[in-house]
Amino acid sequence: MENIFTDDYFMKKALHEAEMAFEKGEIPVGAIVVVDNRVIARSHNLTELLNDVTAHAEMQSITAAANFLGGKYLKDCTLYVTLEPCQMCAGALYWSQISKVVYGAYDEHRGYRKMGAQLHPKTTVVTGVMEQECGALMKAFFQKRR
Amino acid sequence: MENIFTDDYFMKKALHEAEMAFEKGEIPVGAIVVVDNRVIARSHNLTELLNDVTAHAEMQSITAAANFLGGKYLKDCTLYVTLEPCQMCAGALYWSQISKVVYGAYDEHRGYRKMGAQLHPKTTVVTGVMEQECGALMKAFFQKRR
Repeated sequence: MENIFTDDYFMKKALHEAEMAFEKGEIPVGAIVVVDNRVIARSHNLTELLNDVTAHAEMQSITAAANFLGGKYLKDCTLYVTLEPCQMCAGALYWSQISKVVYGAYDEHRGYRKMGAQLHPKTTVVTGVMEQECGALMKAFFQKRR
Repeated sequence: MENIFTDDYFMKKALHEAEMAFEKGEIPVGAIVVVDNRVIARSHNLTELLNDVTAHAEMQSITAAANFLGGKYLKDCTLYVTLEPCQMCAGALYWSQISKVVYGAYDEHRGYRKMGAQLHPKTTVVTGVMEQECGALMKAFFQKRR
């Protein structure tokens, strides 16, 4: 039987979250956390609505997943996020010791790699999953705003 | 008239917060945010109590200060924190464009400088304020835990 639970399958769910952010006038980034092919957290960027720079999609999903699991470590979890995490989110992911991070579009300006921040050495990283779709939503947002 | 509102004056308040964390069995880090010599946010590390790696003192104070100000940028604010921020907190401070960060003890292992993360270029940084007192509380905590 074909495995439907691919990285694309889950990234589409993160992208759906990003679209919800877009519709609210937020920079369109979405994230979900998955454990054993089950989505245990989903969120999208809410920095404008909440007036809070810490309200990135990843931060909310990390907190929600920890609440769901009843523990602060996300050792058997995968985070899917439509945009490369910033240094804040990479730092939170570092502390969570998450198993795997999958991101879509690259952030060449404020992404954690460019800024010099680090994920946990135990974390597997997969990049560029549905990069075009994730990036297109970002481009559409910034074109609209100009 | 002597200015009582020195960095030591405010760091003592952050240290008081760190002592509250210590008493709860949390890694003893405290933070406050000050604007025009007025404390607008105070917090201490709650990662154990909340089961949440994002519940660092700085993160809570950034959110609380933004709530107080009604805007997400902390451009005229100073954050006092007893320990050098980690890369997550440095990343949040970066996004907040905070004016000034004052920290007490250095974190040579997980501090943002060692990890490679960055504060905002507009942020003034003052280090080592009440370093001994801030560091002594950390040492006492880890000795107790062993």
